[in-house]
Amino acid sequence: MANLASVLSTIDANIDASKGRLVELLRIPSVSTDPAYTKECERAAGWLVAALEGLGYFAESRATPGHPIVVGHAKAKRPDAPHVLFYGHYDVQPADPLELWETSPFDPHVRRGKDGEEIVARGASDDKGQLMTFVEACRAYEANGGLPCNVTFLFEGEEETGSPSLPGFLAKHRQELSEPSLALVCDTSMWNAKTPAITVMLRGLAHEEVVLTAASHDLHSGMFGGPIVNPIHVLSKIIGNLHDAEGRVTLPGFYEGVPEIPADVAAQWRGLDFDETAFLSALGLTTVAGERGRGALEQIWARPTCEVNGVYGGYMGKGTKTVLPAKAGAKFSFRLVGTQDPEKVLESLRAFVRARLPADVKAEFSSHGASGALSLPFSSPELSRARAALAEEWGVDAALVGCGGSIPIVGAFKETLGMDALMIGFALDDDRIHSPNEKYSLTSFHKGARSWARVLAALAG
Amino acid sequence: MANLASVLSTIDANIDASKGRLVELLRIPSVSTDPAYTKECERAAGWLVAALEGLGYFAESRATPGHPIVVGHAKAKRPDAPHVLFYGHYDVQPADPLELWETSPFDPHVRRGKDGEEIVARGASDDKGQLMTFVEACRAYEANGGLPCNVTFLFEGEEETGSPSLPGFLAKHRQELSEPSLALVCDTSMWNAKTPAITVMLRGLAHEEVVLTAASHDLHSGMFGGPIVNPIHVLSKIIGNLHDAEGRVTLPGFYEGVPEIPADVAAQWRGLDFDETAFLSALGLTTVAGERGRGALEQIWARPTCEVNGVYGGYMGKGTKTVLPAKAGAKFSFRLVGTQDPEKVLESLRAFVRARLPADVKAEFSSHGASGALSLPFSSPELSRARAALAEEWGVDAALVGCGGSIPIVGAFKETLGMDALMIGFALDDDRIHSPNEKYSLTSFHKGARSWARVLAALAG
Repeated sequence: MANLASVLSTIDANIDASKGRLVELLRIPSVSTDPAYTKECERAAGWLVAALEGLGYFAESRATPGHPIVVGHAKAKRPDAPHVLFYGHYDVQPADPLELWETSPFDPHVRRGKDGEEIVARGASDDKGQLMTFVEACRAYEANGGLPCNVTFLFEGEEETGSPSLPGFLAKHRQELSEPSLALVCDTSMWNAKTPAITVMLRGLAHEEVVLTAASHDLHSGMFGGPIVNPIHVLSKIIGNLHDAEGRVTLPGFYEGVPEIPADVAAQWRGLDFDETAFLSALGLTTVAGERGRGALEQIWARPTCEVNGVYGGYMGKGTKTVLPAKAGAKFSFRLVGTQDPEKVLESLRAFVRARLPADVKAEFSSHGASGALSLPFSSPELSRARAALAEEWGVDAALVGCGGSIPIVGAFKETLGMDALMIGFALDDDRIHSPNEKYSLTSFHKGARSWARVLAALAG
Repeated sequence: MANLASVLSTIDANIDASKGRLVELLRIPSVSTDPAYTKECERAAGWLVAALEGLGYFAESRATPGHPIVVGHAKAKRPDAPHVLFYGHYDVQPADPLELWETSPFDPHVRRGKDGEEIVARGASDDKGQLMTFVEACRAYEANGGLPCNVTFLFEGEEETGSPSLPGFLAKHRQELSEPSLALVCDTSMWNAKTPAITVMLRGLAHEEVVLTAASHDLHSGMFGGPIVNPIHVLSKIIGNLHDAEGRVTLPGFYEGVPEIPADVAAQWRGLDFDETAFLSALGLTTVAGERGRGALEQIWARPTCEVNGVYGGYMGKGTKTVLPAKAGAKFSFRLVGTQDPEKVLESLRAFVRARLPADVKAEFSSHGASGALSLPFSSPELSRARAALAEEWGVDAALVGCGGSIPIVGAFKETLGMDALMIGFALDDDRIHSPNEKYSLTSFHKGARSWARVLAALAG
């Protein structure tokens, strides 16, 4: 097996050539949402196939109903080496508004930024620069005797349009793709420019719409108001009772499967330089709401929510209408953590609503999809090894962070391939992904490649 | 003063001529909302001026920003006679859809209905037939020595479009029009075909819109959900707390000025053949909601309400959007009774909302108008006299009824002229006003004229 020190030296010695390859990939305008760029997406996929083949790996571009998916396989020298799947995406967001770019979005250039040199181009951070940190780490291993892990590569071209072809592709190639025991995903951020991060928790999401109906039609609020039940009142009382005075969700069984964060992780989060006041102030707010006694970061990363995303009923236009409405509705969504069961949560909501319907009020329910939370157990050995590897590279412990939203790809890996994901990325919060003048720090790029070299070595034991 | 028995005989003897005059007026298509019929509105006003002048009264058609208003004055023979103002409207609703009429809407014809003969035409019931009951009563008095009361006539031509010119007209002619001490309004219904009714209570109405805002903009419910206050939740809790478990409004001071119905009136209402089950069933309902222990009729006629006419916030379209909204709003209206002060009620709502705003949630209020309830005191001597007069004509006591809605004209009489109104009308619930084949019972017409003859005599004492 390759000597890690030599691999890191190789990365350092060849960093300019690595940047040159990144620039080549960034020059391809692989905008996935715009059919005008379909050929460019194919070109980017072909470029990646060539890059992997250039390293001596098996690689091919496979057609999907949308843009092609690149699959590659690389064998470690050691027969008992672990097997990982690396995921990245070669597609990018549209570049417009073009006039806000300092230079052409597909003509990458390097400039000095506040955290050192950075490369400016659409896709520099999301996700071509990140993807290439891993490829360049592999290249350095190949120059030093080969990889310490078996690696399956999976590069898709539809992440920016919601990965419509990916679930079907995973299912179709389940046998081939489920050989690895862990997915490595490089599409997330550092905690800050000096502190790497591993995303270990993604909240789940469950949707339910509730429509209450009472009278057979809207009525005049003067001629009928009083003895006729108003579904807006009923719905409001239900919504108003979904949280108690402490901000906790009152649905029976809601907190089943919601774990408390281990003390050491909680301590680590408190140690992060998260400025709650600045976070709130940027939103025009001053005060942490929600569950009393829990901070903003903990709530977003590790606590479930019951949120009304929309409410409607009666007359919603300008001015007044003296209507006693026949109907009112609300769109509920739940962010889920731990082992909360999405279906149980929705059923608990339905039971809660039904139990609060007065005579003559009927409820209709419609579900809009549900998926549970995803997390890498804090006790997982892969997590410990990756964390140690990152600490060696960066000189500080990696933050173990959560993500309040869901990342559908990670859900698909878990669901279809039965595989956990280790989410490590080197993007910075000011990378302006999806915006004009997107950039990627060259420190992220260089130390990102070194980080992956260390993580692969650590995972191999 | 004329002998009442002779007056009634005159009405009976001339009923065919009376019908003939009603038919003449019904032939004029005085549709107020359609500019194509402006000349017809003027023609109807002119017809009424001629009718009053034909009785020897002063009458003239006066221009307004809209259709003309007819003012007439008639002197009683007795110098100390009371002075009343009679209100009616000569304008009608559009007749369409024309194809649903059995005969042309402005070519009146008489047919046999379930309650006897009836005349079918647009405006037959609303309000030309009703208006003419009073004019024909006056005519019979003139044939028998003159009126027992001084009468001011006020016929407007914009009732069906919300009487936009009336308030200004009343203000402009306040001195002339405020001489009478009581308004007689003939634009309401009988309790049923055998039981006359006097409408003695109209609920008031106050509107207030409340918009709550929290964060400076809509947020992603995954990336921010938990520590960020959701204005839909706050608004729902407020609305949900506006009524207690007994259905009573919880706003402090709300029931100040809400009288209990006198025992004899309550007993009279219980004696009415109101079929609560049929009333609810027609609306797809089975159960009286609202204030526990109070019937539907009592609630609509004599109890105040706090109603949300509309609610809105966040994403209201099809499907889902994982939005944590920055804004939510509700349109409130209050139906008021007794001496409830609309401004105090709205201020109580505003205070109630403000007291329930968590940190970072702001409320904006906008009022959309307010007017108090109107009622003729149950103890008023005019009411007793009119009721006795109706009982003599119909052989049963007149029902003293309420109206859940407001009648803006009556509010204007009270506000601008300081005048109470005695609302007596002979329409039936199945008159199909505003609909094709509108009709007026010829019994209503004939006994209506006789009723007014008796009421005028009774008011004169």
